[in-house]
Amino acid sequence: MSSQPSVPVDVARLREVLDGRWAEVREAHRTELDDSFLPVYGETGDQARERITGLLPRLPVTMGMPAAFPAEYGGRSDIGASIVATEMLAQVDLSLMVKAGVQWGLFGGAVLSLGTRRHHDAYLRDIVAGDILGCFAMTETGHGSDVQQLRTTCTYDPATQTFDLHTPHQAARKDYIGNAARDGRMAVVFAQLITNGQRHGVHAWLVPIRDAAGNPMPGVTIGDAGPKAGLLGVDNGRLSFDHVTVPRDMLLDRYGQVAADGTYSSPIENDSRRFFTMLGTLVRGRASVGGAAAAATKVALTVAVRYGDIRRQFSSPDAEREVLLNDYLAHQRKLLPALATTYALHFAQAELVAAIDEVQGGDGPVDEHRQRELESRAAGLKAAQTWHATRTIQMCREACGGAGYLAENRLPGLKADTDVFTTFEGDNTVLLQLVAKGLLTGYRDEFGSLDGWGRASFVAEQVREMVLERTAARSLIERLVSAVPGRDEEVAVTDRGWQLKAFEDRERHLLDGAVRRLRNGASTKKDRPFDIFNDVQDHVLAVAAAHVDRVTLEAFVAGIEATSDPAVKALLSRVCDLYALSVIEAHKGWFLEHGRLTPARAKVITAVVNNLLKELRPQMGTLVDGFGIPPTWLHCAILREEADRQEAMAAHDAAGDPQTVAA
Amino acid sequence: MSSQPSVPVDVARLREVLDGRWAEVREAHRTELDDSFLPVYGETGDQARERITGLLPRLPVTMGMPAAFPAEYGGRSDIGASIVATEMLAQVDLSLMVKAGVQWGLFGGAVLSLGTRRHHDAYLRDIVAGDILGCFAMTETGHGSDVQQLRTTCTYDPATQTFDLHTPHQAARKDYIGNAARDGRMAVVFAQLITNGQRHGVHAWLVPIRDAAGNPMPGVTIGDAGPKAGLLGVDNGRLSFDHVTVPRDMLLDRYGQVAADGTYSSPIENDSRRFFTMLGTLVRGRASVGGAAAAATKVALTVAVRYGDIRRQFSSPDAEREVLLNDYLAHQRKLLPALATTYALHFAQAELVAAIDEVQGGDGPVDEHRQRELESRAAGLKAAQTWHATRTIQMCREACGGAGYLAENRLPGLKADTDVFTTFEGDNTVLLQLVAKGLLTGYRDEFGSLDGWGRASFVAEQVREMVLERTAARSLIERLVSAVPGRDEEVAVTDRGWQLKAFEDRERHLLDGAVRRLRNGASTKKDRPFDIFNDVQDHVLAVAAAHVDRVTLEAFVAGIEATSDPAVKALLSRVCDLYALSVIEAHKGWFLEHGRLTPARAKVITAVVNNLLKELRPQMGTLVDGFGIPPTWLHCAILREEADRQEAMAAHDAAGDPQTVAA
Repeated sequence: MSSQPSVPVDVARLREVLDGRWAEVREAHRTELDDSFLPVYGETGDQARERITGLLPRLPVTMGMPAAFPAEYGGRSDIGASIVATEMLAQVDLSLMVKAGVQWGLFGGAVLSLGTRRHHDAYLRDIVAGDILGCFAMTETGHGSDVQQLRTTCTYDPATQTFDLHTPHQAARKDYIGNAARDGRMAVVFAQLITNGQRHGVHAWLVPIRDAAGNPMPGVTIGDAGPKAGLLGVDNGRLSFDHVTVPRDMLLDRYGQVAADGTYSSPIENDSRRFFTMLGTLVRGRASVGGAAAAATKVALTVAVRYGDIRRQFSSPDAEREVLLNDYLAHQRKLLPALATTYALHFAQAELVAAIDEVQGGDGPVDEHRQRELESRAAGLKAAQTWHATRTIQMCREACGGAGYLAENRLPGLKADTDVFTTFEGDNTVLLQLVAKGLLTGYRDEFGSLDGWGRASFVAEQVREMVLERTAARSLIERLVSAVPGRDEEVAVTDRGWQLKAFEDRERHLLDGAVRRLRNGASTKKDRPFDIFNDVQDHVLAVAAAHVDRVTLEAFVAGIEATSDPAVKALLSRVCDLYALSVIEAHKGWFLEHGRLTPARAKVITAVVNNLLKELRPQMGTLVDGFGIPPTWLHCAILREEADRQEAMAAHDAAGDPQTVAA
Repeated sequence: MSSQPSVPVDVARLREVLDGRWAEVREAHRTELDDSFLPVYGETGDQARERITGLLPRLPVTMGMPAAFPAEYGGRSDIGASIVATEMLAQVDLSLMVKAGVQWGLFGGAVLSLGTRRHHDAYLRDIVAGDILGCFAMTETGHGSDVQQLRTTCTYDPATQTFDLHTPHQAARKDYIGNAARDGRMAVVFAQLITNGQRHGVHAWLVPIRDAAGNPMPGVTIGDAGPKAGLLGVDNGRLSFDHVTVPRDMLLDRYGQVAADGTYSSPIENDSRRFFTMLGTLVRGRASVGGAAAAATKVALTVAVRYGDIRRQFSSPDAEREVLLNDYLAHQRKLLPALATTYALHFAQAELVAAIDEVQGGDGPVDEHRQRELESRAAGLKAAQTWHATRTIQMCREACGGAGYLAENRLPGLKADTDVFTTFEGDNTVLLQLVAKGLLTGYRDEFGSLDGWGRASFVAEQVREMVLERTAARSLIERLVSAVPGRDEEVAVTDRGWQLKAFEDRERHLLDGAVRRLRNGASTKKDRPFDIFNDVQDHVLAVAAAHVDRVTLEAFVAGIEATSDPAVKALLSRVCDLYALSVIEAHKGWFLEHGRLTPARAKVITAVVNNLLKELRPQMGTLVDGFGIPPTWLHCAILREEADRQEAMAAHDAAGDPQTVAA
């Protein structure tokens, strides 16, 4: 029913391309994590927490998440390896990945990035070894997105040379804090620093929250966030501080120091700028969450594609057996564009991880422009990958029918566990706003601020003329784009240059429009500064989404260019066509509205997409096998059982049992 | 920040309009179902099953789901009341709703519809009273959508005057069966009837599966479907039959009888036609699932809207306190179109329920054309409502941030419990195909068949010229549509006639295109009958979706027309504008591609939608209050606590505590 591939693809070669630079880390996880690391279906919250805590010390160290720490503390200063390890854990058990992410990424990462030598020497070795479990206590019940406005205070008293950490009211309670409800011995607590009667913005302290016996420290109240949609193995909790005394040297003081007499000093003068510089060092958290969401999506797609290749339903007049789900156009329309998008995002994520590793991994000072561009990219890709995960895992569960609703078939856990990724480590909508703000201001001034409103008129005046900054394979993409003739209609829709130009046109036009509308607003709505931004918020978010789409396509194109195996390259090129044309098809309203597509060409795109589905149909299995997920990791009953059932039924039908064959 | 409504709306009047004809049933539930019926967060599967089973006998009877049964068995022959009662239970606890739906809708409904007097007299009273709990054992592991191909057999033996019920292989195992794993004493089992060596298609038998002590009957193997994504309180199980003897009179023989000597007779000669007539009597199952999904969506929207009206984040230069979530355009863009769609679907559902009540509730013979049209409408609205629920509840959970991920805030349960609705009682994609087939063939011949493939060429030849059948307020809608001048550009996009015409144009054009493509395919692909349909499957599904959109808009328009209160009518009219224009905006690619919209007018629509959001912003609370959900039923911690927290924070900030105010 479908055309055959012209060149057979060696799955091992495809996997090599996808495994990329940290292939060794991926292989270490595939080899070391056996069945005992897989989720247990139907366990209670207490059972899940117990099990996950027990697994933590058994995880790979130098080839795992702790790889990011310096060798002297047990790692090997490999930031990229640490993010890739997070992706791998996400395919095994998402509770385990989050628990490990809290311990080594957030908690340990904060001590490493915000602390100084004395904190490192005193704690990092135990943190890496998992002997001190800890929390990252930033979010409060009252402030999740706008963390610059945290209400917890930490006030220095020169007389005692200690800080007084305090939760002034219930909205200032630390909330959703991983590792808090059960296991955490210490916490990095974020609070407003006050000394000598002056506030200096949000800083972080390393604070013991439980004693050796596991009881809360004096003045610390610990609550449980209770049952959640998923991530049962993670002990999210709530922390309140009733005038808790914190020694002066527990301030993580890389970016701000308090002298014994209470004098404050910092290499960064502006409070807000300092805070977002502190947050910036934590950029790999967002890259890890985005990568983990993508990794879980690959598991879901592997389950749905593999099931669709054995599950049959409804007979066809031209086949003896019933039709495989994957042979239906509607099923291909669900699975294949999602698979193509997953491939595209994979290359974008790989590029992001390499860039973080390069920018943050060196010994010298970090290039500020690159750092901000990186924060923006991590934010945008985190939003794109987590929403893609939520949509795609949902679709995969539906594509498996009632079986997809049973825990034993893995999909319910993947859906429930990843669900929170769209709003943690930054709410996706807020993150896209941050991306747009970076584009609008050229990453100038307080870019990191999540607050798009406070100084709207300022930003409106600052918006720059659009300059597209390419992230990947700059010269190749320039060449492809500039080779497209002026009259689009003459170019095939599968021309890569035309596709790149279409993505770029959309981003550029949307950005220009946002600039124009913000400037108009700044002059006509001077008395309503909130409305200047709010009236264009939908437009601004569209800019960010278009930007992420472009960055993703460019990364995919660069990834294909770097592929040497011709068969793999040819396959990836068709997948890239499907990705690019699916995005254009999904936004054809915009392209038609702005004269970028004629109606006739829009119809051609739909026809070409359908042809691509036919062409890629026989490659669906290869495409998911390329993800390299060990079969046991799929942990899915229907994949183990359905083929046998179909065989049993076919054999029984063929045997002509009078009870089952029509008279 | 937003304009005020011109006429104040009395919420009680709005609720009256929404409560509609079965307001009394709604009120009975609101009054009778106290806190003890609400979900318990964090319980185990066993605890949930125990609790739900215990609640079943406490539910309203004559004002509840059993109302559909005749008075002599404990009901009052009120089919509409029964569906509305299902909607109400869905707002209390979805496990309870599904458990009750299995007992009274599926199991009891099958005995009533497929059985005859002797079955009714023997069992219905106990079924209505909940003294016999039962299952609806249709789906098999191997056949869920294509239930005409079930593999379980039931073979008559004239010598013993009994049937032999048998599961020939593991693909024929009954699966996902509610009430099977724990509570069911009997089951309506669907199987292939064989008598005198001949097959007569699928029939149903009433079969005891457990004895009085709760042990499986001889030859019956009962398994547990295990943990699921949600619906923890429903004991879904698996049934296998090893040559189980079933007495002759346990055949539910309304549509097919087996005489003592094994002679088969039926008022409907064709096996397939008979089977789909049998299924047709169960149409209210789909209407109930669609209505339940919509009801749960209303709970989620009430939570998210009410939270967005108290939750603040990010400061604004022109306000003392931080900004309410609902004041952000991006938040309005998420919540308000979903709210408008929920309103539109509410009126479509109300119209469907009234139509089912009218067509099936009478004593005379059922009008076949109307019955088929009804099945199609129930299928289409079930798909639309359940997908809307999945998308909207997901969006609401994200709109509540991290709080939306905690079980105590209700949304995780709503999401997980409704998730399966998109694939049970008919997979949505398969149902839309059924809708399209009805439109293509004018509801002729085997319309009920879910199999779009087997006789594709036949169907392709049968496709009729398009005749739009209006379901609601026929003359009003004709008048509105015909009043639209030929040149669309001269009419405001808020003109109701223009909106109706746009929906109708889309459906008509898509249907014409599908007819043309099927006819072309039938002549050019004679040797590939599967491809005739498969190559246009995406197009055919688009026809169905456009049809459901049109039916929904027409029902909304009819509902507004029937509203007497002027303020309520004015508000509903604006909500209807938002619904209609959101749908057109979402499909603007199609409208532009087909010359139904100019680019300029497409941009006007986006601007008008944004204006409608501003206009409706102050009414968001009123709109959710109109759903009439008792506050305790919301069962949501953030709604109880967040307002107090915001007050505490505001008071603290205002008090100028030196620890919390910037120096």
